[in-house]
Amino acid sequence: MGKINVDFSKLHIEEKEILKYSDSILNIHNFLHGKSSLEKEFLGWVELPSNYDKLEFDRIKDIALKIRNNSEILVVIGIGGSYLGARAVIEALIGSFENGDVSNTQVVYAGNNLSSRYLIDLINYIGDKDFSVNVISKSGTTTEPAIAFRIFKEMLEKKYGVNEAKKRIFVTTDKEKGALKLLANQEGYETFVIPNNIGGRYSVLTAVGLLPIAVAGLNIDKLMEGARTAQERFANPNLLSNECYKYAVVRNILYKEDKNIEILACYEPRLYYFAEWWKQLFGESEGKDLKGIFPASVCLTTDLHSMGQYIQEGRRNLIETVLNIVGGNMDIEVKEDKDNLDGLNYLVGKSLDYINKKAMEGTIEAHVDGGVPNILINIAELDEEAIGELVYFFELACAVSGSILGVNPFNQPGVEKYKRNMFKLLEKPGY
Amino acid sequence: MGKINVDFSKLHIEEKEILKYSDSILNIHNFLHGKSSLEKEFLGWVELPSNYDKLEFDRIKDIALKIRNNSEILVVIGIGGSYLGARAVIEALIGSFENGDVSNTQVVYAGNNLSSRYLIDLINYIGDKDFSVNVISKSGTTTEPAIAFRIFKEMLEKKYGVNEAKKRIFVTTDKEKGALKLLANQEGYETFVIPNNIGGRYSVLTAVGLLPIAVAGLNIDKLMEGARTAQERFANPNLLSNECYKYAVVRNILYKEDKNIEILACYEPRLYYFAEWWKQLFGESEGKDLKGIFPASVCLTTDLHSMGQYIQEGRRNLIETVLNIVGGNMDIEVKEDKDNLDGLNYLVGKSLDYINKKAMEGTIEAHVDGGVPNILINIAELDEEAIGELVYFFELACAVSGSILGVNPFNQPGVEKYKRNMFKLLEKPGY
Repeated sequence: MGKINVDFSKLHIEEKEILKYSDSILNIHNFLHGKSSLEKEFLGWVELPSNYDKLEFDRIKDIALKIRNNSEILVVIGIGGSYLGARAVIEALIGSFENGDVSNTQVVYAGNNLSSRYLIDLINYIGDKDFSVNVISKSGTTTEPAIAFRIFKEMLEKKYGVNEAKKRIFVTTDKEKGALKLLANQEGYETFVIPNNIGGRYSVLTAVGLLPIAVAGLNIDKLMEGARTAQERFANPNLLSNECYKYAVVRNILYKEDKNIEILACYEPRLYYFAEWWKQLFGESEGKDLKGIFPASVCLTTDLHSMGQYIQEGRRNLIETVLNIVGGNMDIEVKEDKDNLDGLNYLVGKSLDYINKKAMEGTIEAHVDGGVPNILINIAELDEEAIGELVYFFELACAVSGSILGVNPFNQPGVEKYKRNMFKLLEKPGY
Repeated sequence: MGKINVDFSKLHIEEKEILKYSDSILNIHNFLHGKSSLEKEFLGWVELPSNYDKLEFDRIKDIALKIRNNSEILVVIGIGGSYLGARAVIEALIGSFENGDVSNTQVVYAGNNLSSRYLIDLINYIGDKDFSVNVISKSGTTTEPAIAFRIFKEMLEKKYGVNEAKKRIFVTTDKEKGALKLLANQEGYETFVIPNNIGGRYSVLTAVGLLPIAVAGLNIDKLMEGARTAQERFANPNLLSNECYKYAVVRNILYKEDKNIEILACYEPRLYYFAEWWKQLFGESEGKDLKGIFPASVCLTTDLHSMGQYIQEGRRNLIETVLNIVGGNMDIEVKEDKDNLDGLNYLVGKSLDYINKKAMEGTIEAHVDGGVPNILINIAELDEEAIGELVYFFELACAVSGSILGVNPFNQPGVEKYKRNMFKLLEKPGY
């Protein structure tokens, strides 16, 4: 049961060191799973996989089907947690290069930067294609997505007329209040809810992530099922047999030993945005009060030829957490070449996945020998269930790890500072 | 003269601190610019912009035109320095979303990982399109590109026949020796040279980078012109008036103050691969002997909603170097909305570039206030000349900075370790 497991065997941490955190873990566990947890602010994600709005879930599937039928492109407008989770899941399961085949509705992303070049490139790319928009924002006033939404709303109205455009705008926002909710009520847009008790970076399994993921053609039932598996598996308060809690503890032990950078390493380019999601989750949750492990990521073997030298022989302040996809659902074999000038014939008949695996094993050995503690997360296969499980695993691990560190893993006070300065420079009324 | 300049005004480093490095800088300067520098191993890049093989340069332009005429896609096969420089320049100047318009030949990348999913996605993406291959490898035996080359060579032969395929394979490799050179001689492939005295991460202005960049439709004369401007501007041995040397010194001063992570921040998504190139350059040059600043990157304002919290309030071991594109060649204005529910009307008539700039200024102020030293690199506009200048600026700064740090900035001994382990696990003869 469960499609992921964590291998701590490459670490040199004694069990008794881990057990020192037992009391702390029990307290955090009780806090997270306390009877009133659903009442607590920011803890809505804890029981979400087994306790979500089934009616809205079914509506998401219906609407996704409708969008898939009338749109070649869905423009997801959102920043931070409002797009990273969806993008992480979609790219992991569908791949790069135009989200796979052309019969699929492609999800593209806007409103996560202020680059005119990006926006113009995107508009040119959409061209004459049929498209819909999913705008995702709690308040509806965040600068980046609000600007993008004005632009794409106008594009839709020009292309389809005002009334038809309204049927191509889908809003994910607060249940009751805020600019976007008000506009949606006024215009009659279909809306979905960002729950009050779930913060942006923990929101991928709400409508925030689920609608775009379903539009991309993925099975959100399986995604929730995987998350539910994780919810059950990692609700065990026993530290030694709960790999999620153990991961949280181990990274705190390493942090105390001055390992202050954690690199999430994958051997599959499709996991690039999953790593970006992970960076937000941990960076925003733990990077405060002048503390926190700095989250970074590499895509291997690619980056063994760029960051590899540093990981092998640079400052020894690194932790490496490896995402290992155990099963492959695609493969290519190395074929014979009679001249064998490149010396590859020793690999004839071997599959690329096999070679990739050996590269991973050789790299883990080299990095561990070089003084970089490695944690290995095995993922049975790259599918909705496994990704759902992994998402919940990291969400829980992050909440626990941040709590051990002594920070509030659910706020992000530092994010407001640049905004205030920016508003002042832009002469926004009131700043 | 020159399209880039560096603003150190956000730092709190006294001039006398910088001047302590004057002697050291003079020694390094003399080493780099010594009369016999072209004879020295690894220093071929120093005078490259003013001293390159003009005949080969013209041949690159001719061949690029030929490829542009008969290929919708060029597959660049290479790993590390053999693709990152080209990709950095192409994506900076042409953009994401299929390299801009469809009339252009699109450059795609293979042989930089061992993922079968990636390769199959890429092959599906190429589909029926006409394509050519540029395989880039000094030895011709590096596992990743060698495997990819076997596959794409076979694809070309199946599609075009053996003889026509030969005219669609372009080899960039050692001048005289190695498996790829041997194969090219045997098969009659057009070849280009990776100079002996230029390492992979310093090779973007050789045929390694120039052929793909020219195929993408960019002006490589202007690129070299920009690099030449930098070569002249930053050949000044006076530390205080040489911004390149000053950047190298300043990062070493900060490193001694325990700033051990440098984040390259851009406000333009097109610079994503430029940051990846920069990470290889600095990470591989300095990350050794248990030393070195860990290079990371963020794309803003996107990542203000993920890594922003950490940068603002996490551990204070960060340096932030900002790439600021001063002039915009595209723009979009915010338009009026009568209801103004999103509260954006205060921005009506303002351009997106202007808002992006104010976001940058507000962010720099916030991060500096938060204890992150910021270095600002202003780039007049995003064009070939500016990118050429910036490439040379960073190459020189990296060589100088690594020398100050006391490491050899031109080797990468750690990269071999995973390979040895991998070969052993793959039972390669001799391992």
